[in-house]
Amino acid sequence: MMARALRLAARGTYTTRPNPMVGCVLVQGDEVVGEGWHVRKGGPHAEVVALEAAGARARGAIAYVTLEPCAHTGATGPCADALAAAGVGRVVAAMRDPFPQVDGKGFERLRAAGVETASGLLEPQARELNAGWLSRIERDRPWVRVKLAMSLDGRTALANGDSKWITGEPARLDGHRWRARAGAIVAGAGTILADDPQLTVRLPEDVEVLPPLRVVLDPGLATVARGRVREGEAPTLYLHAPDVKPPRGIDAQRAAVPASGGNLDLGAVLRLLAEREINEVHVETGATLAGAFLSAGLVDELLLYVAPVLLGDRARPLFAGLGIDAMAQRLQLQVFETRAVGGDLRLRLRPQQR
Amino acid sequence: MMARALRLAARGTYTTRPNPMVGCVLVQGDEVVGEGWHVRKGGPHAEVVALEAAGARARGAIAYVTLEPCAHTGATGPCADALAAAGVGRVVAAMRDPFPQVDGKGFERLRAAGVETASGLLEPQARELNAGWLSRIERDRPWVRVKLAMSLDGRTALANGDSKWITGEPARLDGHRWRARAGAIVAGAGTILADDPQLTVRLPEDVEVLPPLRVVLDPGLATVARGRVREGEAPTLYLHAPDVKPPRGIDAQRAAVPASGGNLDLGAVLRLLAEREINEVHVETGATLAGAFLSAGLVDELLLYVAPVLLGDRARPLFAGLGIDAMAQRLQLQVFETRAVGGDLRLRLRPQQR
Repeated sequence: MMARALRLAARGTYTTRPNPMVGCVLVQGDEVVGEGWHVRKGGPHAEVVALEAAGARARGAIAYVTLEPCAHTGATGPCADALAAAGVGRVVAAMRDPFPQVDGKGFERLRAAGVETASGLLEPQARELNAGWLSRIERDRPWVRVKLAMSLDGRTALANGDSKWITGEPARLDGHRWRARAGAIVAGAGTILADDPQLTVRLPEDVEVLPPLRVVLDPGLATVARGRVREGEAPTLYLHAPDVKPPRGIDAQRAAVPASGGNLDLGAVLRLLAEREINEVHVETGATLAGAFLSAGLVDELLLYVAPVLLGDRARPLFAGLGIDAMAQRLQLQVFETRAVGGDLRLRLRPQQR
Repeated sequence: MMARALRLAARGTYTTRPNPMVGCVLVQGDEVVGEGWHVRKGGPHAEVVALEAAGARARGAIAYVTLEPCAHTGATGPCADALAAAGVGRVVAAMRDPFPQVDGKGFERLRAAGVETASGLLEPQARELNAGWLSRIERDRPWVRVKLAMSLDGRTALANGDSKWITGEPARLDGHRWRARAGAIVAGAGTILADDPQLTVRLPEDVEVLPPLRVVLDPGLATVARGRVREGEAPTLYLHAPDVKPPRGIDAQRAAVPASGGNLDLGAVLRLLAEREINEVHVETGATLAGAFLSAGLVDELLLYVAPVLLGDRARPLFAGLGIDAMAQRLQLQVFETRAVGGDLRLRLRPQQR
């Protein structure tokens, strides 16, 4: 039942942010009497949807919910109260909600109303589902996923910059699904100048997606006047060094971030994005900026598409500036998923826990 | 039954060469009455082993054999005659034997003796099993497998040459299994000088292996005087440019191969190895020689171990000298197997059919 609730929650992958994804299943014996998930901010919580579906059959039911029910009044009233009022007998949560306004208070309210509570069922899966939101709440920074596409010999583009296309159409479509789940897509000024990307989500029309914020790391605001990144409905935010002003007549959403040596402080960039309620950051950029995120220890996940082509040793590297001169300095990762996507491979890796 | 015969045949992977691997299963109805495989050159053929096991029960049996039974007298008499003499009613082969002394004559002898024949059952699998032997018979050159180990970012060693160890122990052990099935392990003089490898098979003692020939491509015989590659029981062959003589007092097995610009003609190298009855060549060398094999279109398979570590853009490339300046020149491969080996990945790739 909790696995079912997690699958329901995941239906909000492209729409629920900045809120956490939550799913709820109400059960009488072996029968599901109501279920639901939180679709979007401002909309009803998963528990409320499930209670409405169950009606009078909620009385005495067990509620499986992927996150501790809320105890505070936001867009909707406290879910803990709603569950108790409907006569639910027991609430099984996958995890406690670390959000300061909840953080155990949901369970307390339920118990005070005579409802049994339990927590921790499929907790690792529930944490994985909301890795971005948890990162923002617990670490004050978004979950950072760096997406790269490379040839078998570790090259992202030819010497002349040509990278169209190393991977196949299925891999590129898959990349758009990962963009779609991020709160922000981040690129550097170099990528904007070289590739003029849109940084939008292009998925089939029947897929509902909350357009991610496009973020350009542009210390000198050199690219603010132009580019496809300014077109379309998704908002675009330029992050720049302090005391830099945009060219006259250019009106763009922008914010200053501490910088040194011409480079933005990436930790400050992430703190700023967390303040703007970004849960997951999708970094799609060149070797230098990707290398800078990696060297700063700010990469949580590498999403790597590998095309079975060889581009040779004159082509451009995957990461630049790692400064590795001895085996002991190598960056150790862990492959946690390998998958064929069309004729290409998709690897997901995480830095080794130190 | 043919799948069973193929599995039996494969038991000869480390010992049967230069002969083809062959397995045979004799069946009465649903019951296996005898089976066998060809263990080593000079030993009995698969059919003979199976017939001996079946005894009188071979009469009227169906023989599933992974290769057309032989029609000529070699170390043993013709298997076609032995099958007919034992009263086998029907012979089903996976494939015709392209070896000139057989090449349909086995089937002819069987039919002449009143035995039904059929061919083509699981033929692709049978061809795959003996890809090396078929390459030698049909193309006059061995099957060439290039083994490489690289970091996630496509690097085989640090700038200082250090490559110990990019991959983990399980991947290195797996590499020895691939060495063990090859008739020859080929390395360049540069690798001998830099790494001083043994180029031997190191597998658990209970695994019987016919030691592969060690072949050093050394145009100027610069490395012939020294190195661990001269130690141990496996033979070592130095291939060098014409008119080059080894230093006085050095006695080593060697042969001249046409060369130009200081590089051996790799096609000629492979022809020479085919003449010496090498079915599979295992190339284990640096970026330059690996790139030369690849550029010459002489690589049949890439065996690539990928460690989830990053070594950075100063480290050494996977292939050198591919000379790719435009996307149209890229070398397209096909991944036909992906597998986790310890914490590393093992990819097997083949050049795309043109």
